[in-house]
Amino acid sequence: MKRNISSLAVFSGKPTFDSPLPVGQMNFAEWERFESAFRGIFARRYYTNHGPLVQELEARLCNMLGVKHAICTTNATIALLIAAKALELHGKVVVPAFTFAATVQSLTWAGIEPIFCDVNPVTHHITPELVEPLLDDSVSAVLAVHLWGNVCDIEGLSQIAAKKNIHLYFDAAHAFGSTCNNIPAGSFGDMEIFSFHGTKVINAAEGGCISTNNDYLAERLRNIRSSYGIRGTVYPNIMTSNGRMSEAQAALALLSLEDYDKNSQLNRDRFERYISHLKILPGFKFISVKSDEKSNYQYVVAEVDHEAFGISRDELVYILKAENILCRKYFAPGLHRCPPYNEQYPHFLNSLPNTDILCSKVIQFPSGQLITMEDIHTISTLVIYIHEHASDIRERLFHVK
Amino acid sequence: MKRNISSLAVFSGKPTFDSPLPVGQMNFAEWERFESAFRGIFARRYYTNHGPLVQELEARLCNMLGVKHAICTTNATIALLIAAKALELHGKVVVPAFTFAATVQSLTWAGIEPIFCDVNPVTHHITPELVEPLLDDSVSAVLAVHLWGNVCDIEGLSQIAAKKNIHLYFDAAHAFGSTCNNIPAGSFGDMEIFSFHGTKVINAAEGGCISTNNDYLAERLRNIRSSYGIRGTVYPNIMTSNGRMSEAQAALALLSLEDYDKNSQLNRDRFERYISHLKILPGFKFISVKSDEKSNYQYVVAEVDHEAFGISRDELVYILKAENILCRKYFAPGLHRCPPYNEQYPHFLNSLPNTDILCSKVIQFPSGQLITMEDIHTISTLVIYIHEHASDIRERLFHVK
Repeated sequence: MKRNISSLAVFSGKPTFDSPLPVGQMNFAEWERFESAFRGIFARRYYTNHGPLVQELEARLCNMLGVKHAICTTNATIALLIAAKALELHGKVVVPAFTFAATVQSLTWAGIEPIFCDVNPVTHHITPELVEPLLDDSVSAVLAVHLWGNVCDIEGLSQIAAKKNIHLYFDAAHAFGSTCNNIPAGSFGDMEIFSFHGTKVINAAEGGCISTNNDYLAERLRNIRSSYGIRGTVYPNIMTSNGRMSEAQAALALLSLEDYDKNSQLNRDRFERYISHLKILPGFKFISVKSDEKSNYQYVVAEVDHEAFGISRDELVYILKAENILCRKYFAPGLHRCPPYNEQYPHFLNSLPNTDILCSKVIQFPSGQLITMEDIHTISTLVIYIHEHASDIRERLFHVK
Repeated sequence: MKRNISSLAVFSGKPTFDSPLPVGQMNFAEWERFESAFRGIFARRYYTNHGPLVQELEARLCNMLGVKHAICTTNATIALLIAAKALELHGKVVVPAFTFAATVQSLTWAGIEPIFCDVNPVTHHITPELVEPLLDDSVSAVLAVHLWGNVCDIEGLSQIAAKKNIHLYFDAAHAFGSTCNNIPAGSFGDMEIFSFHGTKVINAAEGGCISTNNDYLAERLRNIRSSYGIRGTVYPNIMTSNGRMSEAQAALALLSLEDYDKNSQLNRDRFERYISHLKILPGFKFISVKSDEKSNYQYVVAEVDHEAFGISRDELVYILKAENILCRKYFAPGLHRCPPYNEQYPHFLNSLPNTDILCSKVIQFPSGQLITMEDIHTISTLVIYIHEHASDIRERLFHVK
């Protein structure tokens, strides 16, 4: 506990934590289970190229996500690129600027021009109302992004895509296990792309997956993923790449799948612990999960209102970093303000007011396997302390900077 | 031993081997060494994103290849794509059609048009003489490919690239540890791209590496490889992807590097055993290594002359496959005859006579960790038997087909 503001690490006090607390999930199985899975790989001498563990993983994912095809990849960024190619996109694609860079960069690598769409200030998602005015004849698809364990307005977006006869697909990196009308993300739109990066609830260290109910798209995706090891039809007239998932990655993801119920419950416990500590704090609002839906609770995300909380989101991140609490500013700056897009498409710079506000307010707090309930108590107590001494801290920060 | 041609598996005899012999290297360390490396990863809880093992691997590769920068990636296909983007290529690039698909497809993904160059019938490489007539103002680079453990004519290609002021870079998937004038591949041209796929002498199951002496290109490559974990300068104005190598991949590659001397010597022993058995066979010519250079000997590759050997390369591959000996037809068909290139650029169809001949003649034999000297004796004896009974076999094959 800090006794006075001089004891804050940002003012040269001792940091609250001796080493940095990671912000991501980092859900890894116990060594013994990992060892057992890897002994199997070495015994089989089958290390990559759509091996037995990748096949098992894909079957389990189909089952869990309620979808016909799950195509695992080396990471979600490559998956997004493969998806854009499989859909044969052309012209322009509507996409939020309030997202991780890879969402939009996958379009750029595929030769597609993004049309940035603003987001709803409450859900942080793009909505049918915001998308529709952007749909002219040059648009071949909408790439929507599920955020913070919540799923987009599937019905509304699907209706618009059908009406305009364009593709609709989803960056579902945040939505493994999350539902819309109690249907899990995975079968919505033409396809959905999941991330199994170490920071996510399902974790292959690096990894990704594309899910679809469309047989034709599934074959195209498998063709593009690799010129080897394709099951089913081979389309010779397709550009291939290497997006293969190795057996080692599949082993990690399978262990993580086994633990999904436990880990998502632990995430929920941590999430609710944060809320119980901080819900009454002025200017502090957590992004919650709809009471009738499921979520992986992998992200603990709040909006910080500068006026009411007393200091800004950026200042809060700065102060907490000095304490070895690594919070993230999501997604600051918005992609419309990042190179190369700010230079290539300057007309979006002042067209996304909700995105700009969220980019200045949203903060992600540490959660995941390495964060204890005690850590959350400590972090929350510190955040309350910072709020209570906001004006003194700001005054002194001004002189330090 | 086959006693009569009816005992060939292609004619329903019992296959020589009970299960398929792999054609690639498959050099994996003993479980104990692997386990020890992986315990370290779990103890550190650092699984990806330019971790300590990737850093150690890159340092060792720099040392071994005699190059300033080694940038490891999740696979060589993605590395080739990152390389094309880092070089800011435009217009057209001269490249052989006698290569693995990923070489040329990396250009297509990067929006570059290939100009296919024929190869020298002895070395199988593109040469300055073949490249020079193709260099008009639309060409921004030459992407040459080292083949079969031999390195291209570095001096000649470098002179042409310098004269025309264009980039020169190398697909070095076949050339780890191989030399030109006793300098190892790795520091030639603007950059070189290595593969650490399980079929290669250095093996991360999946993996790759880009080597360069150019500081500016190295920083660009690191930027494009990942928007995270960049060391050194960050170029905000660059399109990033995810080409990160995980710690698991780096652990495998480091074990493989430790074993390089042993494994390349074992490859050489296997290579020479094949030659000792088959060198006198009519119509059968192994691609050898220049006596004054080093090689990894990872490929055992021969040309089969239909007339002199008695049956064609395609028929030989077909017969051996039935015996569970999986030889590869390299690189058949040439990429100028594969979609989408045959349709997009039909003017190359009849412009690469040496490539066409090699595509019909070249065969790769099984080598690597899982192939014993006894296996090689068995395979060679069978190849000699097939040659000796060629006309009877052809006659009967004709009826079977």
